[in-house]
Amino acid sequence: MDTDAVAKAFVEHYYSAFDANRAGLANLYQEGSMLTFEGQKIQGSQNIVATLTSIPFQQCKHNITTVDCQSSGFGCMLVFVSGNLQLAGEHHALKFSQLNFHSLLFIFHLMPTQEGSFYVLNDIFRLSYA
Amino acid sequence: MDTDAVAKAFVEHYYSAFDANRAGLANLYQEGSMLTFEGQKIQGSQNIVATLTSIPFQQCKHNITTVDCQSSGFGCMLVFVSGNLQLAGEHHALKFSQLNFHSLLFIFHLMPTQEGSFYVLNDIFRLSYA
Repeated sequence: MDTDAVAKAFVEHYYSAFDANRAGLANLYQEGSMLTFEGQKIQGSQNIVATLTSIPFQQCKHNITTVDCQSSGFGCMLVFVSGNLQLAGEHHALKFSQLNFHSLLFIFHLMPTQEGSFYVLNDIFRLSYA
Repeated sequence: MDTDAVAKAFVEHYYSAFDANRAGLANLYQEGSMLTFEGQKIQGSQNIVATLTSIPFQQCKHNITTVDCQSSGFGCMLVFVSGNLQLAGEHHALKFSQLNFHSLLFIFHLMPTQEGSFYVLNDIFRLSYA
């Protein structure tokens, strides 16, 4: 398996869904999945997607800077993504024409499914960090 | 298992060794361990420690800002650390009194050992990121 290519395809798929239809991310998580969002732990596909859809920017675009990937045993993959987030969201309506950039990072631990694809077992997301 | 407490103890142990005796990190890795350092993949305890000891700052102090931890299945743990690095190294000798701060992040994927502790199966280290 070319883990780098699989990781890159996963990241592109994930961020397309995040930017276009965040609720559609539900099928990338399962009941045992865990998200740590800004230090808070959230378990299960439904709770995770509820958290992701509640993040207060509705229009955004991810610009990916780096993708690091490693096989992590048991057919799993560890993927680290850094980049920035370009916002033009509703809470910025007063300055809608002004784009806001934020650094972000995502860590994904991907577990193989019986159907030959992957789901997100572990997910760590930070917008603000040192 | 209190994964947060174990992760915090691991991180403290790792950075004490990193700052005091980097070669001593060898026993935290095994032959199957992988480090991605600034996008480059390095496999095996000896190669990883050779890379870590070749990082061109000999005196440094890590200041940890955040530690996120999750159980990642199979008795493993995923740990994400962000913080900054305070350098007073040899290549800064001309401005030795001037401390230099760099953001950094570390991702550890920890695998249990038969002796009841953990080793680092996957490690991703970036000094420069978006």
